[in-house]
Amino acid sequence: MEGKPLASIVSAGISKFGRLEGKYSREIFSEAAKEAFERCPKLDPKKDVKALFVGQMSESFEHQGHAAPCLSDWIGLLPIPATRIETACASSGAALRCAILAIMSGLYDLVAVGGVEKMTHRTTSDVTEYLAMASDFPMEQWNGITFPSIFALMATAHMNQYGTTEEQMAMVAVKNHRHGCLNPKAHMQSEITVKQVMESRPVALPLKLFDCSPISDGASCLVITKPKLAKRFAEIPVDIIGTGQASDTIGLYERDNVTSMQVGRLAARQAYKMASMTPRRIDIAEVHDCFTIAEIIAYEDLGFCSPGEGGKLVEEEETQLSGRIPVNTSGGLKAKGHPVGATGAAQACEVYLQLTGQADRRQVKGASIGLTHNVGGSGATGVVHIYRRRD
Amino acid sequence: MEGKPLASIVSAGISKFGRLEGKYSREIFSEAAKEAFERCPKLDPKKDVKALFVGQMSESFEHQGHAAPCLSDWIGLLPIPATRIETACASSGAALRCAILAIMSGLYDLVAVGGVEKMTHRTTSDVTEYLAMASDFPMEQWNGITFPSIFALMATAHMNQYGTTEEQMAMVAVKNHRHGCLNPKAHMQSEITVKQVMESRPVALPLKLFDCSPISDGASCLVITKPKLAKRFAEIPVDIIGTGQASDTIGLYERDNVTSMQVGRLAARQAYKMASMTPRRIDIAEVHDCFTIAEIIAYEDLGFCSPGEGGKLVEEEETQLSGRIPVNTSGGLKAKGHPVGATGAAQACEVYLQLTGQADRRQVKGASIGLTHNVGGSGATGVVHIYRRRD
Repeated sequence: MEGKPLASIVSAGISKFGRLEGKYSREIFSEAAKEAFERCPKLDPKKDVKALFVGQMSESFEHQGHAAPCLSDWIGLLPIPATRIETACASSGAALRCAILAIMSGLYDLVAVGGVEKMTHRTTSDVTEYLAMASDFPMEQWNGITFPSIFALMATAHMNQYGTTEEQMAMVAVKNHRHGCLNPKAHMQSEITVKQVMESRPVALPLKLFDCSPISDGASCLVITKPKLAKRFAEIPVDIIGTGQASDTIGLYERDNVTSMQVGRLAARQAYKMASMTPRRIDIAEVHDCFTIAEIIAYEDLGFCSPGEGGKLVEEEETQLSGRIPVNTSGGLKAKGHPVGATGAAQACEVYLQLTGQADRRQVKGASIGLTHNVGGSGATGVVHIYRRRD
Repeated sequence: MEGKPLASIVSAGISKFGRLEGKYSREIFSEAAKEAFERCPKLDPKKDVKALFVGQMSESFEHQGHAAPCLSDWIGLLPIPATRIETACASSGAALRCAILAIMSGLYDLVAVGGVEKMTHRTTSDVTEYLAMASDFPMEQWNGITFPSIFALMATAHMNQYGTTEEQMAMVAVKNHRHGCLNPKAHMQSEITVKQVMESRPVALPLKLFDCSPISDGASCLVITKPKLAKRFAEIPVDIIGTGQASDTIGLYERDNVTSMQVGRLAARQAYKMASMTPRRIDIAEVHDCFTIAEIIAYEDLGFCSPGEGGKLVEEEETQLSGRIPVNTSGGLKAKGHPVGATGAAQACEVYLQLTGQADRRQVKGASIGLTHNVGGSGATGVVHIYRRRD
């Protein structure tokens, strides 16, 4: 017996991801919301949308806190409640979960949920610092550690424990760039080779430049409603049938195991249980590949393969568009881009497009069950959702 | 017919508010959570608490984002979902609303919700800047405006439109300091006179130093559950029977009316309607007196008096501890202190103490209905809750 719908996505949109010069995040978010609203002609946003939940990681990029009412204003939704959710790079995954709770509460019939980040106008050093604020200040930041170096530690441990290779990590990047070329919204639009990844300049070894997701601007927006109202707004709603969220120590150094993320495993377990699903039932997944090693760990934490087998899974092309379980058809964080606050809801947007047959050249035929996996920091937050197409 | 309970508070705690030197916000939040947990002997936090929602305004004070999992860790709640909510100074008011939605959703039986901010280790100029980030960057911050100056504009307009006087504003400060002296947790522990307020140094005229809430450290924490489970945990639960939230333009300059806050009026209207209550039924209220003028505006927006009559209300001592409707018995933001992220849940904590007869020397006898009013920025976010003692 499969899980019952908790809430239903009736529309979704994302802005172009990339270097969006001369735009504030409010403008970028408006692009995403406009696409979501226009994709749903039966929606009257001003009348139907009862609340906005929005993920944004950092006030530092634009020296702008209190973003939610401002974003709500720019998409024409004042004076509805507008609330910002922050769990680092999992901000809009957590916002989606809050929006689901809000729908389940019965207080709202329909809400908008999304995320946004404007990053590229800052220097790389500023961006690195602002992102590092999601790691522990006294024990990590203070000692000079940054996220590439944290994930480099995880990659090294994974290589040591399981024999995962740098080439296997590179294959994640190659696959996601290939997928990104099929997504006109993706930041990166060129294919790359394993050789290019291996020869790209070192960032924090074993991670090289092409193992890292780029610094991007972008926004995402979903419209979700009660399952029983969904058909009013969309011919093919996408039901959310599982949600999981977990938290862990903010510092990597406090964890027993750094070759896996407990939050990914726990959030997945909750979501699978609620959806009455097993990993084998998942047709497509968008996972949190902030660095190539993170996608390999995600495969394992989500049960797409056994622990330590993630490198092989990508090497055997199982997660390609044409494989057994296509992962990151959007291009993922690696090639679509990673405007951090936007990422979680952007993953859900890709799943929505795939399950409703709107993914154009990257469409996975017959996909009916999807999963998203969104991580904050080095794994202090993990959020997993499971989706099912409703015909 | 009064409103039915949406969720029930079964315990609450706050840390000492003030200058808490040498402590991180995680340590301060632990004090509040410890008090809330210890006040509820039937609670087994590790077993019973299923999620944490926490309001924190700014990552800048401690150079620390991604606070929720870290705070959850320090109060022993890993690996439950932990989510930060940010709506400027209304962050933990909005967190409380998210927690209520979470309980109403049926997904959780019991959750913790709170807020925290650590501010006093920063220079006044840094604090002023970080707080100003909740105003509009391109149109307000960029032009040098700060929150004292924004509220000074509102005060000037209120004086001009209604004849409100500087002395009346001073009376808000005098009252709240008197109340604060009865609250051992309050930052300010001394009575002041109207003359002292009038002669205190100018900050942004007509607002003088004693018209402004202080820069404080502090934290707050509530335990809320489903109404039908509340009696398992507390002899006298406090039911939340109304909730309202609204948003407005982030910039003051875009509003038609600056002598009132639309978000306060709208959030109150929603909460009163849900609770089937009128302002006359409210026994006690904690309102958002970040500046003295804000409390006067709150009286009017909440319907405790007519527009323009707020100055008279305080002058006639109606809002004193012994008055018709005691406001800010805790000392309010003005005397209890305003660790911004902690404020909304701290207001609910005071209402909990009052309605359960635990407010010691500042106890309002027979109080059974309470209200909290929490504002973000200059009124881009407003959150109102209504509470009822259950015997």
